[in-house]
Amino acid sequence: MRVNRTLSSLLALTILSSATAIAANTKPDAPIKPKNIVFVIGDGMGPAYTTAYRYYKDDPNTDEIEPTIFDRLLVGMARTSPAKVSGYVTDSAASATALSAGVKTYNGAIGVDEHKHPVTTLLEKAKATGKSIGVAVTSQVNHATPASFLAHNESRKNYEQIAEAYLDSDADVIIGGGQRYFSDDLIKKFEQKGYQYLNQFEQLDAVQSGKVLGLFADVQLPWVLDNPQGHQLSKMTDKALSLLSQNDKGFVLVVEGSIIDWAGHGNDIATVMGEMDEFANTLATIERFINTHPDTLMVVTADHDTGGLTVGANDKKSWNPAILHKLNASPQTIVSTFTAQDNWQDTLIQKLGFKPSDEEWNTLIAAKNDKDSKLTRAIIDLVNIRSNTGWTSDDHTAVDVQVFAMGPASKLFIGSQDNTEIAKKLDSLLPPSKSELMKKSVANK
Amino acid sequence: MRVNRTLSSLLALTILSSATAIAANTKPDAPIKPKNIVFVIGDGMGPAYTTAYRYYKDDPNTDEIEPTIFDRLLVGMARTSPAKVSGYVTDSAASATALSAGVKTYNGAIGVDEHKHPVTTLLEKAKATGKSIGVAVTSQVNHATPASFLAHNESRKNYEQIAEAYLDSDADVIIGGGQRYFSDDLIKKFEQKGYQYLNQFEQLDAVQSGKVLGLFADVQLPWVLDNPQGHQLSKMTDKALSLLSQNDKGFVLVVEGSIIDWAGHGNDIATVMGEMDEFANTLATIERFINTHPDTLMVVTADHDTGGLTVGANDKKSWNPAILHKLNASPQTIVSTFTAQDNWQDTLIQKLGFKPSDEEWNTLIAAKNDKDSKLTRAIIDLVNIRSNTGWTSDDHTAVDVQVFAMGPASKLFIGSQDNTEIAKKLDSLLPPSKSELMKKSVANK
Repeated sequence: MRVNRTLSSLLALTILSSATAIAANTKPDAPIKPKNIVFVIGDGMGPAYTTAYRYYKDDPNTDEIEPTIFDRLLVGMARTSPAKVSGYVTDSAASATALSAGVKTYNGAIGVDEHKHPVTTLLEKAKATGKSIGVAVTSQVNHATPASFLAHNESRKNYEQIAEAYLDSDADVIIGGGQRYFSDDLIKKFEQKGYQYLNQFEQLDAVQSGKVLGLFADVQLPWVLDNPQGHQLSKMTDKALSLLSQNDKGFVLVVEGSIIDWAGHGNDIATVMGEMDEFANTLATIERFINTHPDTLMVVTADHDTGGLTVGANDKKSWNPAILHKLNASPQTIVSTFTAQDNWQDTLIQKLGFKPSDEEWNTLIAAKNDKDSKLTRAIIDLVNIRSNTGWTSDDHTAVDVQVFAMGPASKLFIGSQDNTEIAKKLDSLLPPSKSELMKKSVANK
Repeated sequence: MRVNRTLSSLLALTILSSATAIAANTKPDAPIKPKNIVFVIGDGMGPAYTTAYRYYKDDPNTDEIEPTIFDRLLVGMARTSPAKVSGYVTDSAASATALSAGVKTYNGAIGVDEHKHPVTTLLEKAKATGKSIGVAVTSQVNHATPASFLAHNESRKNYEQIAEAYLDSDADVIIGGGQRYFSDDLIKKFEQKGYQYLNQFEQLDAVQSGKVLGLFADVQLPWVLDNPQGHQLSKMTDKALSLLSQNDKGFVLVVEGSIIDWAGHGNDIATVMGEMDEFANTLATIERFINTHPDTLMVVTADHDTGGLTVGANDKKSWNPAILHKLNASPQTIVSTFTAQDNWQDTLIQKLGFKPSDEEWNTLIAAKNDKDSKLTRAIIDLVNIRSNTGWTSDDHTAVDVQVFAMGPASKLFIGSQDNTEIAKKLDSLLPPSKSELMKKSVANK
């Protein structure tokens, strides 16, 4: 068992001297400051989400447990509490404002401080330096997280106002869901400003340049579990990277795995794992981009944990993800597609991928006889019990979230940091804006 | 709102060039490899424990939230799954064997691999290089975690065999609880080997040198909540550091906040916070030692999460630690001290530090009329509800744990790592053992 200690000491020295490069995921030939920044947010993705995802993806036929892209890119953690007026547990609006502008604010605030005054965001600052900017998300594009980068509003609930405000954001790429919040009139105004408006996901393929407003769903994009070959977030990200990188001055892109959080609110572990899988695909897409564009920094974090997910529960030392791979639709879709069918039980078995026990059937039938939403919940509960997944809430919790980074300056994000510090660090990596350059030039005269 | 970007760019460069030193918590004058290692384990201390502790310690009268020592020292995270035969959720024995010997094994294994073969541990390797070694814990000294560093047994339950095995460990300092597992005969054997045996905590003060076996309780040491001025873990650690550092060749000390886990199994958030507080005091004690001994590395981690603790629960965006500061005894002790009293309700109010509501009294009285253990649980539940604390299990969960480090080579621990890698990295920092030096000398002739 004993390894040769002289050899292992040499190894230690080698590891030590290269530790920074390894840990900071930076290529030796990368510049010290990035030209491009991709800021990726997994909404609701607390630390249990990435752990669960690793074991969900584990190949049970090998002895080892394969590390995920999260494991490769982890550099630190972030503290997420909002301004004290809102206690210790943040919502997505306060957290996104912290991440976009470096300011603690109240829950519900979109790009405004505690006194409801607008605060300048990372994307606005980047635009002022001549860079291109964009957002690509799986919720409506005017949902709290992207809104806090592109707009200023005292309440996240003012969806129409936020959509209107996007007209003045000068963002180059705005893609996701949310058709219901953009009137024909508003879309016309976007087109008058030079935007190409897309309302079909497939149209994205043909776009080669210019500004884009793409709304591919009434509200959210479909669950990954209901559209496994869609790869919508990674495809949107890929397209955004190709459009934004046409600017010689670089770009800042915000990407959000928005509905990881929504599935977490529903305590729906199978749907969560589907969203996490496409989120991981998206990180891999960005990683490939960085491999050919080493002047690009990717920073990934979450805004908060959702649901109090725990990997194991119910007084048992186990977590059993195998059952999650059997489902071939989300519980929500399973129920909505067969409510009127006589043979709903056969369809349910087919969609679940496994046959409930007699006792489980009793619960499911009772729930169906009550109402459809109860049946959805009964299916979710059944999957939680079989996988031994724990949840403590349908709301957010305060646990610190992780920070992942790759590319130039990624070592800035090592260790524990407040979420506002992430914004400040990213800000410090932007070049001087035009107005600042002008001031500087005046001062030098 | 806009900061001067040229200034902030300069700041970024400054941060970048010093990021490694900041993140790795290493003094500029420290050697590249440590002479001494202090390996600290918070048993059961999942990521929600350190988050909860920050908000528990927060001064509500300031706008900011004061960072803790955990925030200052965080460098990475660790993956804790045991050998696949035991699934994805580890126990303390498999995890401690991973941390001590770099080997994945089955739940219950003490310093043995999957085939029940002994594996050489960090402390055994350190001893073979001429260093002093020791353990200081708050459970019985022969509990799973310290046992996996000093003994080899197919089962953690074989407490007497493990205690016997300690005789041959040649450990210089063994302090904690566990009198019931050490017979008079066994203690005599320790004394014949030159150990000073102590059975009163106060005796520790007088010890100035030599080997020590100190057993200060029948099983576990008292809860911090029942002995707030005791500071037993930090005092034991301080004494261990002063004894072990008398060896010119250095030392390796394992410190465990053992019963953070036990309070977690009980889902008892007030008792957990008491244990966390003394654990943080202990880290501060070690930090002070490193400040005067910059050749010392401290690495801190947890073996696993316990209880599926969540900071917030019950569909509410809040966590309310103020209530936890009111209790002046642990729920267990509250109940055991007044079971026979007529005026138990008055005593309960006094010990809790707050008056239960009528509805809460109904629950407590019903539980007391049933049995004492139910009353303890009812009090714990009451505190969980008032603080809005979530738990999903009385057992462990699989969420990744954090890694904290300070001192030479601390940057080795940046990022995500398997728990076995922590052992391998620490191993790589030890000098060659005597037998290896002899081999090398023969080879050179």
